[in-house]
Amino acid sequence: MEQKRCLALKITGKAFDEGPELLRKYVHVIGGLARDYSVLIVTGGGRVAREYIEVLRKVGVESNYWLDITGIWVSRLNALTLIAALSPHSYPKPVTSIEEAVAAINTSRVVVAGGLIPGQSTASVLLQIAEALGLKKVYYYSAVGKVYDKDPLKYPNAKALSVVRASELAKILEQEMLPGEYALIDLQALKIAIRSGIEVQVLSYREPEQIYEALKGGNPGTLILPE
Amino acid sequence: MEQKRCLALKITGKAFDEGPELLRKYVHVIGGLARDYSVLIVTGGGRVAREYIEVLRKVGVESNYWLDITGIWVSRLNALTLIAALSPHSYPKPVTSIEEAVAAINTSRVVVAGGLIPGQSTASVLLQIAEALGLKKVYYYSAVGKVYDKDPLKYPNAKALSVVRASELAKILEQEMLPGEYALIDLQALKIAIRSGIEVQVLSYREPEQIYEALKGGNPGTLILPE
Amino acid sequence: MEQKRCLALKITGKAFDEGPELLRKYVHVIGGLARDYSVLIVTGGGRVAREYIEVLRKVGVESNYWLDITGIWVSRLNALTLIAALSPHSYPKPVTSIEEAVAAINTSRVVVAGGLIPGQSTASVLLQIAEALGLKKVYYYSAVGKVYDKDPLKYPNAKALSVVRASELAKILEQEMLPGEYALIDLQALKIAIRSGIEVQVLSYREPEQIYEALKGGNPGTLILPE
Amino acid sequence: MEQKRCLALKITGKAFDEGPELLRKYVHVIGGLARDYSVLIVTGGGRVAREYIEVLRKVGVESNYWLDITGIWVSRLNALTLIAALSPHSYPKPVTSIEEAVAAINTSRVVVAGGLIPGQSTASVLLQIAEALGLKKVYYYSAVGKVYDKDPLKYPNAKALSVVRASELAKILEQEMLPGEYALIDLQALKIAIRSGIEVQVLSYREPEQIYEALKGGNPGTLILPE
Amino acid sequence: MEQKRCLALKITGKAFDEGPELLRKYVHVIGGLARDYSVLIVTGGGRVAREYIEVLRKVGVESNYWLDITGIWVSRLNALTLIAALSPHSYPKPVTSIEEAVAAINTSRVVVAGGLIPGQSTASVLLQIAEALGLKKVYYYSAVGKVYDKDPLKYPNAKALSVVRASELAKILEQEMLPGEYALIDLQALKIAIRSGIEVQVLSYREPEQIYEALKGGNPGTLILPE
Amino acid sequence: MEQKRCLALKITGKAFDEGPELLRKYVHVIGGLARDYSVLIVTGGGRVAREYIEVLRKVGVESNYWLDITGIWVSRLNALTLIAALSPHSYPKPVTSIEEAVAAINTSRVVVAGGLIPGQSTASVLLQIAEALGLKKVYYYSAVGKVYDKDPLKYPNAKALSVVRASELAKILEQEMLPGEYALIDLQALKIAIRSGIEVQVLSYREPEQIYEALKGGNPGTLILPE
Repeated sequence: MEQKRCLALKITGKAFDEGPELLRKYVHVIGGLARDYSVLIVTGGGRVAREYIEVLRKVGVESNYWLDITGIWVSRLNALTLIAALSPHSYPKPVTSIEEAVAAINTSRVVVAGGLIPGQSTASVLLQIAEALGLKKVYYYSAVGKVYDKDPLKYPNAKALSVVRASELAKILEQEMLPGEYALIDLQALKIAIRSGIEVQVLSYREPEQIYEALKGGNPGTLILPE
Repeated sequence: MEQKRCLALKITGKAFDEGPELLRKYVHVIGGLARDYSVLIVTGGGRVAREYIEVLRKVGVESNYWLDITGIWVSRLNALTLIAALSPHSYPKPVTSIEEAVAAINTSRVVVAGGLIPGQSTASVLLQIAEALGLKKVYYYSAVGKVYDKDPLKYPNAKALSVVRASELAKILEQEMLPGEYALIDLQALKIAIRSGIEVQVLSYREPEQIYEALKGGNPGTLILPE
Repeated sequence: MEQKRCLALKITGKAFDEGPELLRKYVHVIGGLARDYSVLIVTGGGRVAREYIEVLRKVGVESNYWLDITGIWVSRLNALTLIAALSPHSYPKPVTSIEEAVAAINTSRVVVAGGLIPGQSTASVLLQIAEALGLKKVYYYSAVGKVYDKDPLKYPNAKALSVVRASELAKILEQEMLPGEYALIDLQALKIAIRSGIEVQVLSYREPEQIYEALKGGNPGTLILPE
Repeated sequence: MEQKRCLALKITGKAFDEGPELLRKYVHVIGGLARDYSVLIVTGGGRVAREYIEVLRKVGVESNYWLDITGIWVSRLNALTLIAALSPHSYPKPVTSIEEAVAAINTSRVVVAGGLIPGQSTASVLLQIAEALGLKKVYYYSAVGKVYDKDPLKYPNAKALSVVRASELAKILEQEMLPGEYALIDLQALKIAIRSGIEVQVLSYREPEQIYEALKGGNPGTLILPE
Repeated sequence: MEQKRCLALKITGKAFDEGPELLRKYVHVIGGLARDYSVLIVTGGGRVAREYIEVLRKVGVESNYWLDITGIWVSRLNALTLIAALSPHSYPKPVTSIEEAVAAINTSRVVVAGGLIPGQSTASVLLQIAEALGLKKVYYYSAVGKVYDKDPLKYPNAKALSVVRASELAKILEQEMLPGEYALIDLQALKIAIRSGIEVQVLSYREPEQIYEALKGGNPGTLILPE
Repeated sequence: MEQKRCLALKITGKAFDEGPELLRKYVHVIGGLARDYSVLIVTGGGRVAREYIEVLRKVGVESNYWLDITGIWVSRLNALTLIAALSPHSYPKPVTSIEEAVAAINTSRVVVAGGLIPGQSTASVLLQIAEALGLKKVYYYSAVGKVYDKDPLKYPNAKALSVVRASELAKILEQEMLPGEYALIDLQALKIAIRSGIEVQVLSYREPEQIYEALKGGNPGTLILPE
């Protein structure tokens, strides 16, 4: 049994807020990739996660553990959506640990995870899976599609970067110059990218087919270099 | 270790659509019951379940298995909400089998389940848990609070029943005289109630505190007799 | 790795009451099918299940939950028999959920389940697995081999049906015109067949090789149409 | 939560071949003990195990692994019988490892195991559980009730021993002077008894109430000393 | 069942490098605490972890995932040591998730975890468990016993701090002024402490009995304030 | 999917005491074999196991259960070492039961186990896996590489045997003529070999490449015949 090459990608939770049309595109693109690759996907939580967490806060839940866990469960629900739509070519449940992901990828064409543990972003999950599988590049459908050097809403001269070093991006993040969804990745994920030499190709979540260009060597969004 | 008496109840998914105020009442009531009882709760899926299933259908998922599984996952997300709000007095995750429910009830004050398997209503889950634990009465916070003899929207003479025999109710259900949410229970659940002699006390999901009256022997909604 | 076509079949528990000769035939037939198909098998409980349940009743166990669970465990013991005889081409333990069945089928030639949960027939398990895998036909080795329109022991004019609509069969079952083993399927299983458009090919448990004819398009028993 | 004292005992599979009357006695005795003790029970396989194994051999299964596994599953089915009859005071499923047994005993009054792994007798399971829990005495309802110094069927002068040293008994077993059911324990189990200083009180499986006498310090069968 | 108060503490891996005498003291102290508290312990990896990781590097393993996993397994081996020594008052295996920790604490007096996932320190595990259980103070037996404001080996004027704000300590850590074992905690753990208002009482791993003083309100080491 | 032939081998714990150079050789040899075979490996505990057990004894742990469990965990840590070095061609965690081993071998090129249960040698684990898979020969890298007829350190005329019958070897072992590491196998393992007709090819742990010769039909160490 010759093992296929692995492809690891993350889809922001926002993609699941947009309704069936966008989702159908993802299913089409992933279904195609799955003929040539073993595909590992990490999904985010999005609007539904925020709504559940909001309700919990109002009910008086202050524990960050429980708020995080709730977000993780919603990200798994989004994972399930892809699994259902890709069945029978998908591993039949969201994987909940890296070990399970690694074991599952040998049995199914597509394996999908949501968040794994509290206090860890789904971007970190993507990088950790890449580490475990020895991958040197991952793909990340983010809410903004490109990394900016400062908040484009506040600063007219903000630049979308084509290539950025992870260490630089870390500094931008620490100075909190990127609000909300522009801060598409966190320090912990960048650290894993650097320590293990993994490139992160940022893509726009609105255009699932951008990955074709990226796989041919193009760079339709931002490439984060592990340095 | 003296085992406390068990109390099993179901909360319709609708209760989770109403926002934090109603949920806070449930948390208050259940927290109080948990001082005297081992409490087992089954939660439904509600609006979020319907929305996810709707999206899946539009993406082209026709498999009832996957649509049911999606609904089950949302019901578990609702279960998680209660678990978080009742922590640390709750078993720390939604239980996913009756065996797990029965084992967990000896370790925590409150155990919460969503749906268990495709093709089975959460009302049936409630009755099966009662069977496994040998309980003779369960409590069901439903969307309508009372059983009607026909559709109250269509028939001005429809009657809210105080007491109804399960076999009668089964006939009403088979004739499909109760649309949508008025059909609060299914044949399979009624069969379990009958075969194991379990009373079902229907309550209004809008008034969590109705259970106090029911526990004192009152009947604020409808009592379904297992005959 | 090209996925093989899936074949799902149920073997009545009665087949395990007949001793080694019949079992050897099943092993031979399934072993052959497993070269061309991924084979999923559901096994029933039979005589040993009835005996254990009988003893439990006499010991005073009235809980239908526990009686059902006991029957399920015997059906799994029968599943184990096939697994042992088909090893190393079989998944090495009875699967206990549909998710596990779907994941296992990608790793082994033959996957075997017994019952899954209380209150659900093994015929329903077969139909649910078909739903999860998107199959449109299943095979069912039943105790009688053909569906009758009424009890052949009571009515000399009872007819064995070649083809029957699931909805018709449901009516026959509801009128309880088929006693004991002639009632080879239950309403719940028929509902799944209808809602997901799955044909059920009934075969005689005494003749495992009937499936060859059925796979060539023949109908050696009764075909239940999902309408 | 004050931990209760632990009591570990084995019931030969033969006890499950005798029908409901004997079983009812066991349920009564164990239910009583469970008020004062945390009770761990190991059950054997008996006649049903032998029958299933016999069929498998005739079907052509030669692998001792699979024959042993089949015996283990039947012993777990017998375990389930006790669990059902003792519910809700029992841990709700047969435990399948020593770790699970040790964790379960803190949550339920009665925990029941069958066999654990191929090539290991249920007598060894009993001794291993005692080792894990630090117990110095176990109770064993065996097919013969007493240890003999030679085969009583062949040798008119065979003696039933009141007390026997484990090392002596080991020699008797190695010389194969005790056929079939008279060889109630194996070398491996005796080694564990010796290395961990655990007494084995043999009782007759026909008289569950003998344990009362043994708990008061009497010796109604044979006491095997760990030396 | 009245729940006991919870006590969460971490023991540096270094404590397991020192041989039986120190370990015996820990067992004595924890055994005593377990009479009044539900005790949750997190253990580090120490010398054995470093040795295994060193060998793996030399064999050519560059994946940080696998190096981290190896360290986690050694920390679990250290956890097992405490479990064995505290048996039967301990949960019988190292817990491997926060959910399992929270469920286990209701069944046993002492629950022990090692590391949970790659890229996360055992200090973070301690804080996450505290978050999940709603604790406001944790105890940390560290290699140095006190927090310093700079490297005491390099700077003669380095001060051992009695109280330090987590945000201050974070700055000291970021400037990398504390080498090796003096950097007893990481930024991620401090963030959890701050976001959930959890005090960290640092103690010296050489003096297990320091916790008595800390429980009486004293501060034998350094108190890290969550601000 | 054509199943590859299976190869089962054991590596003594001593191999993990020798540092990276020897380990690198094993990784090279196994990596090569994994192209042609499904490889199942069982690893022993070695020096680290003895050290941990020694500490536990000194802390006062007398329970053989806990001492055995500790040894098992170290053998699994050694298993992890191989898994890490062979990733991504290895199943991503040490398997902990024979069922898991059998299921895993269909999904990965290399599956590694340590010990499984207390009171059972890793040599027995090797033979049980062979039984479960129907293998007729296993390979065993032992501390001495050859079986001797008596202790070579004491008896100048001790002979290294090229071929030995398992029953003969059992006698040598029972007379305790082989001390320490010369007693490379135990009675229980030999019994499994005999009952299932499995040859054991002993090899020297210092020369991983000896297996090439053995696979070509040569006998570089000792061949234990199952008679």
